Amino acid sequence: MYELAQRINRIQPFHVMDLLARAQQLEQAGRSIVHMEVGEPDFPTPPLILQAASQMLTCGSVKYTPAAGIPLLRERIAEYYEQHAQLSIAAERIFITPGASGALMLAMAMLVNPGQHVLLPDPCYPCNRNFIHLFDGKPVLIPVDGSTDYQLTADLVQQYWTDKTCGTIIASPSNPTGTMISAMQLQAVIDFLTRQNGWIVSDEIYHGLVYAESARSALEFSTDVLVINSFSKYFGMTGWRLGWLVVPDTLIDAAEKLAQNLFISASTIAQVAAVHAFDSENLQILEQRRLEFQQRRDFLYDALRSLGFSIEGKPHGAFYIYAGCESLTDNSDAFARDLLERAGVAVTPGRDFGEHQAHNHLRFAYTTSLENLQSGVERIRQFVSA
Amino acid sequence: MYELAQRINRIQPFHVMDLLARAQQLEQAGRSIVHMEVGEPDFPTPPLILQAASQMLTCGSVKYTPAAGIPLLRERIAEYYEQHAQLSIAAERIFITPGASGALMLAMAMLVNPGQHVLLPDPCYPCNRNFIHLFDGKPVLIPVDGSTDYQLTADLVQQYWTDKTCGTIIASPSNPTGTMISAMQLQAVIDFLTRQNGWIVSDEIYHGLVYAESARSALEFSTDVLVINSFSKYFGMTGWRLGWLVVPDTLIDAAEKLAQNLFISASTIAQVAAVHAFDSENLQILEQRRLEFQQRRDFLYDALRSLGFSIEGKPHGAFYIYAGCESLTDNSDAFARDLLERAGVAVTPGRDFGEHQAHNHLRFAYTTSLENLQSGVERIRQFVSA
Repeated sequence: MYELAQRINRIQPFHVMDLLARAQQLEQAGRSIVHMEVGEPDFPTPPLILQAASQMLTCGSVKYTPAAGIPLLRERIAEYYEQHAQLSIAAERIFITPGASGALMLAMAMLVNPGQHVLLPDPCYPCNRNFIHLFDGKPVLIPVDGSTDYQLTADLVQQYWTDKTCGTIIASPSNPTGTMISAMQLQAVIDFLTRQNGWIVSDEIYHGLVYAESARSALEFSTDVLVINSFSKYFGMTGWRLGWLVVPDTLIDAAEKLAQNLFISASTIAQVAAVHAFDSENLQILEQRRLEFQQRRDFLYDALRSLGFSIEGKPHGAFYIYAGCESLTDNSDAFARDLLERAGVAVTPGRDFGEHQAHNHLRFAYTTSLENLQSGVERIRQFVSA
Repeated sequence: MYELAQRINRIQPFHVMDLLARAQQLEQAGRSIVHMEVGEPDFPTPPLILQAASQMLTCGSVKYTPAAGIPLLRERIAEYYEQHAQLSIAAERIFITPGASGALMLAMAMLVNPGQHVLLPDPCYPCNRNFIHLFDGKPVLIPVDGSTDYQLTADLVQQYWTDKTCGTIIASPSNPTGTMISAMQLQAVIDFLTRQNGWIVSDEIYHGLVYAESARSALEFSTDVLVINSFSKYFGMTGWRLGWLVVPDTLIDAAEKLAQNLFISASTIAQVAAVHAFDSENLQILEQRRLEFQQRRDFLYDALRSLGFSIEGKPHGAFYIYAGCESLTDNSDAFARDLLERAGVAVTPGRDFGEHQAHNHLRFAYTTSLENLQSGVERIRQFVSA
């Protein structure tokens, strides 16, 4: 039998999937489970988007689109940057992709040679390091904590930079921590990378889902950055699989030929529907949802602290809280399994997000109703005091 | 400024895109263009599939699916193999992907290490060699012609096999030639690869679109092959972006963790709709379309030969004819440009498909009505006799 490519050994599965499978098994056996492990908004896709998709289906003509996406959607996104961040981004720089996954793939394919190093904060979203492995690069995990809002700083990037390093991926708001990078930190990181001829990919898929000040786009600070965004989280379109990548002018041709080869094009129905994501009627609905997420965040933040979890760096975005459980356990993996089995609450153990302090951290997602969160917190209270 | 990854230099854009852009420009200026360059069926998505999608949209819950796809769709595909090829394929071996593009990506990510060689027929579908470049492998193009139906043979594979070779990609029916591999050839290629511990990926996305005997799946000959298929071509769902990959038992875990990381999941709407692709009512519609394609093929085959094009190996599948234009030109690229400018007919020059005899070949797609094909042929007749 033939051998598999070596990268397969370096790519980790999502450990939470086993936990999720077990949760579903328990549910099928009649157990009630509170789901706080899911990185997906619980709200349905907003009605305007559903209507646009339905209307499109009446014509039956669901053909390939241009590889970079339908021009109208690219223009809408450009307008959105103009209106919401006073940024002038040419539509030609915006590539529509199958989810942010497609955007990250496109970016890493363009930027990472085998053997090159890419700097990442630890903890971070697991796919980020796995996309580096996909192209046989080496993710270099930089331990971060609440002292830098779980974000990279120019000092940290400088400290880990070697002649093998080609660039860095940041994410703000971050998954799993919900913390954001300050404008000053972001500027300093970009300045350092510019001096080193290094690249930066900024994952901005949780922009819009913020509960203090607005998240700042890396596009505000440089025209040479690559920015990943998505219709999944803020716009409530997870299963539609649609995202986008903004590239510098100099990368347009490379992105175009890669997109042709990797995707042919993104889902036509999703693209046509997403044109309405930016309508004011839709944005009003998203604002209501944002306020509901904020309410949940406020509740869960206080509740987890009262239960003995430590939370460094108040999470001001996304829908996650990354909580230290060092006063309760030094094995967050076993803790999560027990919590599921004995209390019926599913959460994600730290090790899916990296190595640094993973053994005493858990990610709580507030992607379920306040009522469910209250019920989950009550179950955890009984579990930890048992 | 940072440097791009070296693979970008190795990946070619689709040259036909420039021609397509020019065709659209001419159309906007009021010119009539007959499109014979498009690798996409002209039929709309069949009604049952549209209805299933519409119905799904009424609930609004368009969430992520399991990474490998919704179980019902995987089971339907397994049943289809059972009913149409008497093949027993466990649903667990079937991974639903974003188009055949996603399936090919998954396969190459699992199988190709940087520097390894992969054997391909020349001419072949350009993405095949580009996905090998994507993972820093080296596509080795084996010149083929009508004497082997433009397919690899065990002899050819043996002749090009070295200790750097890891496997081979075949496609039957082939794009651009529409020719098929015989059962005997396929068996012999698989036997050779098995002896070498090499892998084979069989691209079967044009199965169903055949006009003589049925296409044989590589799955009939071995449980260790990987098979790519798609809902795009035969099932008429191009813009939905849905395909699948069948893997050996031994690759299930690797495919699962890769699919999680590369895609999260394929489009939920497309998956739910595609469950109805195999309904007998739908298959009847597809059979009518197949007969129409066959009629077009018969017309175009005779017409092109009468115009002085040479066609080696009668195309019995897909919707392409790969025609030699050596009696008309030795520069198929310039010929295609002139044909578009002066006669208003768009076809794809050979160089998109490889190097071997590319300069005197053109691909004609019969993805437009018989009436349009007749009009196109008449225009070509005038062009070549001018």
